[in-house]
Amino acid sequence: MNHKMVFNMLGRIIILEAALMVLPLVVSLCYGEKCTLAFALTILIALAVGFLMWGIFRTKNHVIYAKEGFVIVALSWIAMSAIGALPFVISGDIPSYTDAFFETVSGFTTTGASILNNVEALDRGILFWRSFTHWVGGMGVLVFIVALLPSISDRSIHILRAEMPGPIMGKLVPKIKDTAKILYLIYIVLTVIEIIMLLCGGMPLYDSVVHAFGTAGTGGFGIKQSSIAGYSPYLQWVIAIFMFLFAVNFNLYYLLLIKKFKTVVKSVELWVFIGISVISSVIITADIFPMFESVSDAFRAAVFQVGSLISTTGYTTADFNQWPELSKAILLLLMLIGGCAGSTAGGLKVSRIILIFKMVRRELRHLLHPRSVGVVKFEGKRVSDETLNSVGVYFLLYVLCFGAVFLLLCFEPFDFETNFSATLACFNNVGPGFGLVGPASSYADYSGFSKIILSFAMLMGRLEIFPLILAFSPSTWTRK
Amino acid sequence: MNHKMVFNMLGRIIILEAALMVLPLVVSLCYGEKCTLAFALTILIALAVGFLMWGIFRTKNHVIYAKEGFVIVALSWIAMSAIGALPFVISGDIPSYTDAFFETVSGFTTTGASILNNVEALDRGILFWRSFTHWVGGMGVLVFIVALLPSISDRSIHILRAEMPGPIMGKLVPKIKDTAKILYLIYIVLTVIEIIMLLCGGMPLYDSVVHAFGTAGTGGFGIKQSSIAGYSPYLQWVIAIFMFLFAVNFNLYYLLLIKKFKTVVKSVELWVFIGISVISSVIITADIFPMFESVSDAFRAAVFQVGSLISTTGYTTADFNQWPELSKAILLLLMLIGGCAGSTAGGLKVSRIILIFKMVRRELRHLLHPRSVGVVKFEGKRVSDETLNSVGVYFLLYVLCFGAVFLLLCFEPFDFETNFSATLACFNNVGPGFGLVGPASSYADYSGFSKIILSFAMLMGRLEIFPLILAFSPSTWTRK
Repeated sequence: MNHKMVFNMLGRIIILEAALMVLPLVVSLCYGEKCTLAFALTILIALAVGFLMWGIFRTKNHVIYAKEGFVIVALSWIAMSAIGALPFVISGDIPSYTDAFFETVSGFTTTGASILNNVEALDRGILFWRSFTHWVGGMGVLVFIVALLPSISDRSIHILRAEMPGPIMGKLVPKIKDTAKILYLIYIVLTVIEIIMLLCGGMPLYDSVVHAFGTAGTGGFGIKQSSIAGYSPYLQWVIAIFMFLFAVNFNLYYLLLIKKFKTVVKSVELWVFIGISVISSVIITADIFPMFESVSDAFRAAVFQVGSLISTTGYTTADFNQWPELSKAILLLLMLIGGCAGSTAGGLKVSRIILIFKMVRRELRHLLHPRSVGVVKFEGKRVSDETLNSVGVYFLLYVLCFGAVFLLLCFEPFDFETNFSATLACFNNVGPGFGLVGPASSYADYSGFSKIILSFAMLMGRLEIFPLILAFSPSTWTRK
Repeated sequence: MNHKMVFNMLGRIIILEAALMVLPLVVSLCYGEKCTLAFALTILIALAVGFLMWGIFRTKNHVIYAKEGFVIVALSWIAMSAIGALPFVISGDIPSYTDAFFETVSGFTTTGASILNNVEALDRGILFWRSFTHWVGGMGVLVFIVALLPSISDRSIHILRAEMPGPIMGKLVPKIKDTAKILYLIYIVLTVIEIIMLLCGGMPLYDSVVHAFGTAGTGGFGIKQSSIAGYSPYLQWVIAIFMFLFAVNFNLYYLLLIKKFKTVVKSVELWVFIGISVISSVIITADIFPMFESVSDAFRAAVFQVGSLISTTGYTTADFNQWPELSKAILLLLMLIGGCAGSTAGGLKVSRIILIFKMVRRELRHLLHPRSVGVVKFEGKRVSDETLNSVGVYFLLYVLCFGAVFLLLCFEPFDFETNFSATLACFNNVGPGFGLVGPASSYADYSGFSKIILSFAMLMGRLEIFPLILAFSPSTWTRK
């Protein structure tokens, strides 16, 4: 393990975070809010810590192997959340550091689970930072670093692999640095389009930017107690559509740009994603129809919530906790499935589900014809046994960690539905769950211990478990 | 597909069932009950159907390939349940055939989920048959056939493999027929010992036999509304211990018989099973202690419920639905894990869980050292990649089927905890769940549709999914 390089990198990340915090600082200055000081102070602290680490840990060996990749990613995310929590505490908006840490992890991991019972009481600068963490975390901080810093070698694919979600990591172009730049460019352009479309619907600029951040990162932090319910149907539709768009594999947008339309149309993952979304929306519309005044209201509510939960965003226009059991069960499954690989969405990812189905089918065939050699194909290419194996193992690990988190939550006096859906909503980076963590309430009632557990669940979900486990296993640090 | 052989085999199974039903017939005759006629009539029907099928479908080709093995097992279990339900309906004790089918499937699959709200009102003959199905289903009807019938070739390993639970099918002795005989012998001896020990504690003969059936098959049908709660502490301990004993791999008993003590002591699965049971019992005792008068009462209740749920039996001495969330969560996980492979217990099986952990560890190593070749060892032997793959796929399939059953149950107006635990309790052949299907209530309130779904969930759990899916997939029947 190249300790020096890891901590040197960590120092750079913290400096980057200080730079990112200038934006909320400016916002709070514009509104003349008291939280300006909190940002200024945090930026100073971050710069001091960052430059200190950068200075102390210097090395000429910049080669990043798989091990270093995982550790850098895991530690950066924890460090960024630890420092990102400071403005909340210093400004006094969230007095408890544990709460602030939970809120910041929830932001960076694009979960959107909140401990705030009244967001509307907070300064605009603080709320801006809260939503901005979604946007930063959505595409990933290290992808950003890779795109920007010149000294990063092409071995940094290991970083991207550890930070980008999904079972198969695809390079768009031969150079990893260019891939990262293209991804961020697409991300920025889509976000800007959403801001413009929201402005066209009469949403104020501040609201538009904040909600676009929340949608782009598939996060879900809002600035109203009622989330998106108070906005016009047009605005609800815009956000719903963008939630779907940000849950699609970004590679497809690149393919559109270079006019490879046929490849896009042939994408199995895209069609399965569309299929699941359409079928779920239709069933839920039929199920909740009696609760609404018109079919179109019910349809809009169904589509919005389906988009919100399959993209693991967590914005709401209705308290789906009050919906019938069938609709709730479908939403629960959508939370579990999540968006497409290579998007900003969380969850298991549609492509993993497809591969799981294909593995099951191959095994069934193998049982009938023991001598047959089954080949699994996906998006027109043969999937290696190694990839299939890692998809299977990821799923096993997912269930094991899920069970562990759920068990630890059960020290709380809350009911089964609350604890189970809290685990699911945090692990899959959704945000709101059912029961006492439903859209109408918050995570405030959980104990500090549970909030720490849930914070790690969110990180595990966002970074797909492996980096965190590896960063905290002693053998990573001791053995050569 | 050798249709003739499959249906010929099915005919024999039905004849065997008619023979088995003579036992409850005799019991009801002894007590001079009205249900005697129901049994006599069912035996006649079974004999007629059985001999007809045996006569019509004659073939000289008795070779059983994997495909035939799966189909025979799946269809036999459905046929046996369909006919085994008749006495309940004819006697009038369960007027609805759907209910009776559910109850019989629950019996044969050793689930113990009941639709009866007052078992004590039923004839003793009927209750005897209900518990006897547990005993028959515990070890498996086809294992019985293999042990008995001379015309079965040694290819019948495919039948055993489809009917015996667990990831690795071990032959005790070279001849499959002898293996089946040894297993049944151990099963009978253990059952008889339990009956004697219950008699020693002052339990009446009828009660002892019925409860020994329920314990041996890890089923859980009782004859009292309060399950085992009304019996003395000694009797509760005897049943608790035997629940654990029947959840242990029967191979170990054979190894004890041939004095290979070292191999038994070295069994990893056994130690993990003991470890899980002890730790769970201790934690639950500490958790529920305030609800009981003394520590020993709490400890007995904890051990009994742990044994009941890890062995997937489902007998109860306390309404664990009223216990704190932590204890409930542990019990839920125990239901999921289940007993050891090669026992009569249901669930995922301890050995699968161990293999899953080992697969995860191998993958983590592989991520750190991409060129390393990981070997997974279990019980001192190397596990083939094929076996590991099938363990992984089984788990994936398990979760998919679980999700499907849960989703179909959500058409009911019941809460999340009820539907989720009903799915788990049926799929893992436990019986009682939480919420409205807790120990104090029954499955009576579910609709006919849900009862059919749950019946198939129980069959999927008992036969480990593959046989049922293959028996109902068109490609099994069409392609050569």
